[in-house]
Amino acid sequence: MPANKLVFSSPEATEAAFYRALHKNDLGLMMAVWDDDENISCVHPGGQRLDGRAAVRQSWEQIFAHSPGMEFRLSDESRYDDQNLTVHVVHEHIRLGKDSNYQPPVIATNVYRLTGNGWRMVMHHASPTRIGNKQEILH
Amino acid sequence: MPANKLVFSSPEATEAAFYRALHKNDLGLMMAVWDDDENISCVHPGGQRLDGRAAVRQSWEQIFAHSPGMEFRLSDESRYDDQNLTVHVVHEHIRLGKDSNYQPPVIATNVYRLTGNGWRMVMHHASPTRIGNKQEILH
Repeated sequence: MPANKLVFSSPEATEAAFYRALHKNDLGLMMAVWDDDENISCVHPGGQRLDGRAAVRQSWEQIFAHSPGMEFRLSDESRYDDQNLTVHVVHEHIRLGKDSNYQPPVIATNVYRLTGNGWRMVMHHASPTRIGNKQEILH
Repeated sequence: MPANKLVFSSPEATEAAFYRALHKNDLGLMMAVWDDDENISCVHPGGQRLDGRAAVRQSWEQIFAHSPGMEFRLSDESRYDDQNLTVHVVHEHIRLGKDSNYQPPVIATNVYRLTGNGWRMVMHHASPTRIGNKQEILH
């Protein structure tokens, strides 16, 4: 089935597809995960906020062009659920290829919305934890 | 009215109280904003994820002990609403006192939940945008 016809029946299915797209550098699958709406936002670790499908798509295109294929392990999941909106908070443990070490975890807040075409991602906010110095904290 | 008796009737009221607490270094008000539940998480800019009321409270206590009183301006708001759960994404423009310059914006994802005691914050995920270099992006 073409990626743009996929319908995810739960936030978990959408999240699994999101991390599969990252692992496979699969831009079609990645954009099938995101809601078909301009009110979507993506923050890559250390990056600016990117709003709307064009900006989100372009960022993944650039990332996939340079990625050797990321390996993911998730931990420390917590969640907030409502009927049509779910927030997952996870730690992403990432390594670039099987022979690399895992990097310090990335904290990701993933927001999913129930649309007319199943559950879609509307927000991905990721931030690095390698800046551990408390002096860096602004508030 | 004591802060721990406050009931916020909308996510907007909770958010306004959150930023008022930050501005006033008001720990009582800050902890009245957060849900009275262990399933809460707070990520300060560049920091680790803090889970549960004790860890969240301790972090604000430390921040307020050293803060001269932060001035806030918010911009670029977007939101995702459901009946009992709301996600606000904002840019926080912060300066430390009236005579300072505003720092590069912080991106904050704020999650509010409708509880038996009104709308409460359950998640605050803030990340700095001063690391603008694309080489810093992990994924």
